[in-house]
Amino acid sequence: MNNYISENKDRFLNELLDMLRIPSVSADPKFKQDVLRTAEFVKERLSEAGTDKVELCETAGYPIVYGEKIIDPSLPTVLVYGHYDVQPADPYELWNSPPFEPVIKDGKIYARGACDDKGQMYMHVKAFEVMMRNNTLPCNVKFMIEGEEEVGSSNLATFVKSNKEKLAADVILISDTGMLANDTPSITTGLRGMSYLEVEVTGPNRDLHSGLYGGAVANPINILCQMIASMHDENNHITIPGFYDNVVELSEEERAEMARAPFSLEKYKKALDLSDIHGEEGYTTMERNSIRPTLDVNGIWGGYIGEGAKTVIPSKAFAKISMRLVPDQTSEEITEKFTRHFESIAPASVKVLVKPHHGGEPVVTPTDSVAYKAASRAYEETFGVKPIPVRSGGSIPIVAMFKSELGLDSVLMGFGLDSDAIHSPNESFGVFNYMKGIETIPLFYKYYAEMSR
Amino acid sequence: MNNYISENKDRFLNELLDMLRIPSVSADPKFKQDVLRTAEFVKERLSEAGTDKVELCETAGYPIVYGEKIIDPSLPTVLVYGHYDVQPADPYELWNSPPFEPVIKDGKIYARGACDDKGQMYMHVKAFEVMMRNNTLPCNVKFMIEGEEEVGSSNLATFVKSNKEKLAADVILISDTGMLANDTPSITTGLRGMSYLEVEVTGPNRDLHSGLYGGAVANPINILCQMIASMHDENNHITIPGFYDNVVELSEEERAEMARAPFSLEKYKKALDLSDIHGEEGYTTMERNSIRPTLDVNGIWGGYIGEGAKTVIPSKAFAKISMRLVPDQTSEEITEKFTRHFESIAPASVKVLVKPHHGGEPVVTPTDSVAYKAASRAYEETFGVKPIPVRSGGSIPIVAMFKSELGLDSVLMGFGLDSDAIHSPNESFGVFNYMKGIETIPLFYKYYAEMSR
Repeated sequence: MNNYISENKDRFLNELLDMLRIPSVSADPKFKQDVLRTAEFVKERLSEAGTDKVELCETAGYPIVYGEKIIDPSLPTVLVYGHYDVQPADPYELWNSPPFEPVIKDGKIYARGACDDKGQMYMHVKAFEVMMRNNTLPCNVKFMIEGEEEVGSSNLATFVKSNKEKLAADVILISDTGMLANDTPSITTGLRGMSYLEVEVTGPNRDLHSGLYGGAVANPINILCQMIASMHDENNHITIPGFYDNVVELSEEERAEMARAPFSLEKYKKALDLSDIHGEEGYTTMERNSIRPTLDVNGIWGGYIGEGAKTVIPSKAFAKISMRLVPDQTSEEITEKFTRHFESIAPASVKVLVKPHHGGEPVVTPTDSVAYKAASRAYEETFGVKPIPVRSGGSIPIVAMFKSELGLDSVLMGFGLDSDAIHSPNESFGVFNYMKGIETIPLFYKYYAEMSR
Repeated sequence: MNNYISENKDRFLNELLDMLRIPSVSADPKFKQDVLRTAEFVKERLSEAGTDKVELCETAGYPIVYGEKIIDPSLPTVLVYGHYDVQPADPYELWNSPPFEPVIKDGKIYARGACDDKGQMYMHVKAFEVMMRNNTLPCNVKFMIEGEEEVGSSNLATFVKSNKEKLAADVILISDTGMLANDTPSITTGLRGMSYLEVEVTGPNRDLHSGLYGGAVANPINILCQMIASMHDENNHITIPGFYDNVVELSEEERAEMARAPFSLEKYKKALDLSDIHGEEGYTTMERNSIRPTLDVNGIWGGYIGEGAKTVIPSKAFAKISMRLVPDQTSEEITEKFTRHFESIAPASVKVLVKPHHGGEPVVTPTDSVAYKAASRAYEETFGVKPIPVRSGGSIPIVAMFKSELGLDSVLMGFGLDSDAIHSPNESFGVFNYMKGIETIPLFYKYYAEMSR
């Protein structure tokens, strides 16, 4: 099998580069045609690889690419999930090479989506091709590749609800997470949920001269800053009433287990050029970004932001705010608590508007399942060491949805690294990691089929 | 004289509209050629009106238009100051008609700069023409019209310092302020100073995924909001150490005098669609926007501000912050205190940078001078009521500079109204006010020359 992979390595890489050249930014309507082209691209590659019934399933948004290979209905079925859309690439000026003109440098593929999730999703298409060409596919496979993950998978749930039979499977396989290091593989066993909102604060009904009005009217930017600032206390606890009500605290044992994962605070600070870390009192850095909920402003704007100076008191100020959630918080609950709180702390001198954007539920996946064990064994065989189970701070809201709608657990076989800078300028994905994925995934199928007997 | 004005009213209007069509935005380099064209325009109109030695005086920035008419060196000399540059017009989408395509509607001229300061500056050019044509110019006149007022008059001081003889005069006459109402004329007797800065907060050295890092690193937007929020206390006093040290408190008598100016809080709130006002505890709205210093965020930006959602923790966040100053604060003192304070409250988890933009000193002009009395009499004659002396919240930094460099007081004959929305979308200037200015200004010259004898 490794022969087929090594013989086709260049083609596997070039096909990925071709896909990375298409700017499938789902958040920005001006890329609509490119997102659609990417769906077509995935569809064609899937059928070339050997899936049947390949189709673009229309949704209210971008289509979901579906394809399957049923070799024997009595055998278990693996449902592969991935997404072909990518994050916006701005700020463009911070990229060393154009985000949609992939380059391979020092063993890494640089492009928006290289890791998240085009690279990791495409490993599955190629791993499937490998098994087909070598006649080693040991069970049934279904592919469900969506185009709206970066905007909250808004239409996936509807699709899943109305296609339960088509999607019937025994386990869901996803590569949209990372691992600790190339010599320290890991499997993600938990994900944070999310509540993403946009807020608008309105002061006067028009922009005002800051000289003639300054001091006498509420400046919506100053007020928005005060409201945002008030949502953390001096210990960086979030002050929204009831925010922590449903947070499951880990036991000392669980925290001790987590602490066993290799982590160097010095390296962490150095990598991000931070003179000091910052976070919730009473928790370690690893805990803060995985088992604790957050409230981060992802974007803020208001007033004059052009060159030079303008002495204006703007009529409005805006912010995009997201909260990462942990078991057993729910996005609906937190969105509602945030909204009520934000409205309650607004002074009478302004009007506020809260627009919920999208949300997703936190999830913890079992480590005692056949799927987890098969994945663990596959990593151990290709990396030479047993993978460590880790809880990630990221969100893949659909994992919880798959559980509730299809009753299926997911196994999260990530091959990316923190240094891949997903969602950042100069996103990358190691050629080593891409090929390791293509090599490891078929082993998962092998052991999963064996252990399922 | 009124005959000449009424006979030429249409031309006086059309010439102003021609100037308003040139987008002389000094803050934005892309309008450079337009700013220069406007300087040429003013120069040509000045010489047509009858000034001698008209020239464009080069500076490190935009040129200063100079022209003079010396009828008799033994007579007093009035130095007219104004500016031909305008504020940026954005947000464009809020204009009912394009900002640089002036329209006259319901007796008002709508365009960026209609009032501030093209309309008010041009009243002086036309008033001078009127006196020339009617042979009623009673003293000497000098015009100094700059093109960088909206960006802090950065090069005017240098020009004034090195041209003291050329600019020698007895009083400075400026129309760059407003009056209370068309039936309640007023003369500005005080202006606030300003310290304008831009701040930058840097967290991690690159944009980060808010899931993988959220909670564990300082989010520069959240931190910036906290820093800005901390600069006002619960009574809306500014918390910068020493900020109020040099603020001159008004006597009860002075405050009572101020309170006599007609003002309706209900109308004020209604005009701005505010359910409540907001400001420093212990002061009235009129006091808050005139005799008290302020700290306003004029612009803020950071993270993802495009359409849709992006789950990012940005590397940097920015804000433009201006403080309005009152006697005897100085912009240098306050800029220094702000900078030291801002740096001192920055947590170790971020780096901050403070860039001073521009500043100006507060000023109070005498009400017992010949110039003030002449202006008062001129208004009384054309409006039928005695004008009220008021202190404005705006800033014309150069007024203090003229005093210190040339030893001259300024008389601020404003004809604009609050409703003119200067610095806002849909800036306007009443045709009534424009013509009233052209009618009133020659009377100022008449009485000023008489009383100076």
